[in-house]
Amino acid sequence: MSSLANRVESAELLSRAMPVEEAVRFVAPGNTLVTSGFTKAGEPKRFLPALAAHLAAEGRAADLTLLSGASLSEEVEGPLAPFLHRRGPYMSSRASRKLIHAGKMDYADVHLSQFARNLMVGLYGRVDVAVVEVSRVRPDGSVILTSSVGVSAEGLAKADRIILEVNTAAPDYTGFHDIALPPVPPHVGWPVPITNVADHVGTPYVPIDRAKVVAVVESNVPDYPVDFKDTTETERQIARHVVAYLARCREDLGWGKRIPPLQSGVGNIANAVIGELYDSPFERLRFFTEVFQDGMMRFMEDDAKFESASSTAISLSAAGQRDLARLFHRTRERLVLRPMWLSNSAELITRLFVIAMNTPIEVDIYGHANSTTLEGGRVVNGLGGSGDFLRNAYLSLLHTPSVRRLKDGRTVSTILPVVRHVDHTEHDIKCIVTEQGYARNTEIRSPHHRAADIIDSCAHPHFRPLLHDYLRSAAAPREARPDGVDPASGFWAEYDAACRSFPR
Amino acid sequence: MSSLANRVESAELLSRAMPVEEAVRFVAPGNTLVTSGFTKAGEPKRFLPALAAHLAAEGRAADLTLLSGASLSEEVEGPLAPFLHRRGPYMSSRASRKLIHAGKMDYADVHLSQFARNLMVGLYGRVDVAVVEVSRVRPDGSVILTSSVGVSAEGLAKADRIILEVNTAAPDYTGFHDIALPPVPPHVGWPVPITNVADHVGTPYVPIDRAKVVAVVESNVPDYPVDFKDTTETERQIARHVVAYLARCREDLGWGKRIPPLQSGVGNIANAVIGELYDSPFERLRFFTEVFQDGMMRFMEDDAKFESASSTAISLSAAGQRDLARLFHRTRERLVLRPMWLSNSAELITRLFVIAMNTPIEVDIYGHANSTTLEGGRVVNGLGGSGDFLRNAYLSLLHTPSVRRLKDGRTVSTILPVVRHVDHTEHDIKCIVTEQGYARNTEIRSPHHRAADIIDSCAHPHFRPLLHDYLRSAAAPREARPDGVDPASGFWAEYDAACRSFPR
Repeated sequence: MSSLANRVESAELLSRAMPVEEAVRFVAPGNTLVTSGFTKAGEPKRFLPALAAHLAAEGRAADLTLLSGASLSEEVEGPLAPFLHRRGPYMSSRASRKLIHAGKMDYADVHLSQFARNLMVGLYGRVDVAVVEVSRVRPDGSVILTSSVGVSAEGLAKADRIILEVNTAAPDYTGFHDIALPPVPPHVGWPVPITNVADHVGTPYVPIDRAKVVAVVESNVPDYPVDFKDTTETERQIARHVVAYLARCREDLGWGKRIPPLQSGVGNIANAVIGELYDSPFERLRFFTEVFQDGMMRFMEDDAKFESASSTAISLSAAGQRDLARLFHRTRERLVLRPMWLSNSAELITRLFVIAMNTPIEVDIYGHANSTTLEGGRVVNGLGGSGDFLRNAYLSLLHTPSVRRLKDGRTVSTILPVVRHVDHTEHDIKCIVTEQGYARNTEIRSPHHRAADIIDSCAHPHFRPLLHDYLRSAAAPREARPDGVDPASGFWAEYDAACRSFPR
Repeated sequence: MSSLANRVESAELLSRAMPVEEAVRFVAPGNTLVTSGFTKAGEPKRFLPALAAHLAAEGRAADLTLLSGASLSEEVEGPLAPFLHRRGPYMSSRASRKLIHAGKMDYADVHLSQFARNLMVGLYGRVDVAVVEVSRVRPDGSVILTSSVGVSAEGLAKADRIILEVNTAAPDYTGFHDIALPPVPPHVGWPVPITNVADHVGTPYVPIDRAKVVAVVESNVPDYPVDFKDTTETERQIARHVVAYLARCREDLGWGKRIPPLQSGVGNIANAVIGELYDSPFERLRFFTEVFQDGMMRFMEDDAKFESASSTAISLSAAGQRDLARLFHRTRERLVLRPMWLSNSAELITRLFVIAMNTPIEVDIYGHANSTTLEGGRVVNGLGGSGDFLRNAYLSLLHTPSVRRLKDGRTVSTILPVVRHVDHTEHDIKCIVTEQGYARNTEIRSPHHRAADIIDSCAHPHFRPLLHDYLRSAAAPREARPDGVDPASGFWAEYDAACRSFPR
């Protein structure tokens, strides 16, 4: 572990080092905070909990706006949630979620690539304070971030006051990052000169205005690890179908052994798919993705299977963190961490022919997907970058188990006649995959005809007859139906019975 | 009018001139045709009707696939529709629509920018025949298109057989076009070096393989004009609110007198908005749009109000066509016609900070929009480029009257608790405008709180109490509602009564 003086090479900024309990006083009532942190990676693990303790001690009202790259850990966001009245653009905190559902916290769910630009152009107003975890402060005051980028560079550029949290327990991440800011009118936008996954266009550091740094605090808390469960047989089966679909595309579209770069959502199915790809005939894989995660670490040791990766965060389990420590220099040579306006850029996703893969909550038989919302309009985590990738991908696929067991004992179908919230439309999804198989949406085919294929290929056999019944009733000519009767109205009662009778 | 020999400067290709009745024989059963044409502009006005007559005489089955840039005229598509079993990616033909609704024709509704690439990479299989209207054939066989580009270049590149329809009645459009093909794997994608609306990156002609040209036919049919009705007071009021919103953004976002480039959907509201902008304080307007239309012609004569435009088609009324003839050279200097993968490119729409404006069929109080589908899942025209622009725009707004009068005498609200089909999600829409006012969706605000604003600012006063009732019931805690009761279930009966009681 280094000392703070080793990590802060600017004497001017080192002179602003102070106990975190003092630094929290720079956050005033009603402030808008932009913080580092993306899926627990690189979040200010000391400052934000200390701020929460300070606000609690002062009995302050919920009047802060908290903006981050994406989710923070429960340890960091949980204590702060009671003091927030606005939160964006993505969160997975139980505490925040509860307040959002109760209507006490406003939450805006924004495509991550667009959020960064909206922030820069001023759609969210001024930024009072940026709180950013860094691994090093260079002599000129510019900073080296840690395990994520998110909107840290935008926050540092926009904020009136900057608080740097120097993580002396983190390794020095110099060389991992590629930092550039999104252009803002009236400046002219420029073509981003990236034509392959590992290309760099910016600087390894974030330049800052030293005069804005009001406090430097030390942290020695490592990133909280993410949880991974063991891969289930269902997940392995989904992964096999994904690879079968990609192998078919390889034939049809003439890729050869090298597959276009892959984006892979967060979670267990994504890790199963990455694992299955490792054992596939595909070679020299590239990941152009939002989050670099456990399954990808394995590729770092095999140059035949892997070429390079781009993401905005490194999000690992405890085991993955140990692998990263062991392979730190190899990883630095092969992985680029970018601001999320670049990691999720429509321009780059299109140009690089990215293949996007994400897990929805549910999909409808016409191909619309719900990625965010449960019954009663309760948002789970948010959209994140799923729209950025699915909308602009060369091939976009959704992978999900065909059924989900609920806590109340019912087993529900993830393939439904209609979804409770549409986050991705039929126009954006090219393939749906479950453990049952896959259905392609890449031919000139009407939604009604695609639907039969989605039911037969993807839905669980227990629910297929009901879904076909629905499809027949939806297709019946209008005059054959009593006026005004929704074809779905009969469905839901029978569906509920089917959910209860699902064999264990 | 020129003769065919004047327009076809390649002796080799001139030797393949033949009567259209012979040329139609090159279309074999089961073929996939790609044709020029975009909103009636530049379609093959002689070949396709002659093909329809030939197929009718032969008693041929419906087994052709017809792919075009966007819609063709009823005159051209109507007679051919009975012989199509697949159609994409956009159409507005009554004949095709009827067959699609009857389940007899498969129709895939695809974002236009993605359609072009899907076609090139082979997702739709091989292309047998390309039929393209041209204004000139150059000595090396390369061609100058006419009033639209669409997917003509992709069709000419992919097709096994090419049929050129030389329109000797059209002016020579040399200098209007900027032609480049989308990269296809394993080729590497390249940054499109366009940083302002009028920048060129390609050639003014489409290169072709002369050996693939099986027929050259002559046409002297001008583009069918589009219909425009007189602007109503409601449309003018919507346009005033749009300009008021833009003026507010100018203040908040610091644009100065020059507004970012505008995309404007097709239709009467769009033309009203363009007219209102002409009378606004904004100067040096730029249009980065899909279709160059009537309202924009006026700008051609005023260099203080207008700088440049980019589109994939020129779609005009009869009066507009006369203006274009009069201002042909001025227009050529100020308007670039591009392939639709460029006119609608996510990369360019993002980079140029395009402000997108489109008219939906209906929107919901949370900000989701239906642009394609009527009751019973019947598609109207298709999505076109609305998703390309709204999804990637700097600011994206939907403009619509707050109510619509149906033929059956009811007056329906365009602001509803839920839309019948989601084409654009709440994540993609930044402002909703009706003749009542506008509601912004650019703050950190939960959908439920945005909804109240949309109802109060945009819905017609006749429907506001009902919509607020719905919103209250949707927000009620789950335990306060009988289990399983959809909060919408009471709404629709009352809504139907309100539609019938709407004051004339």
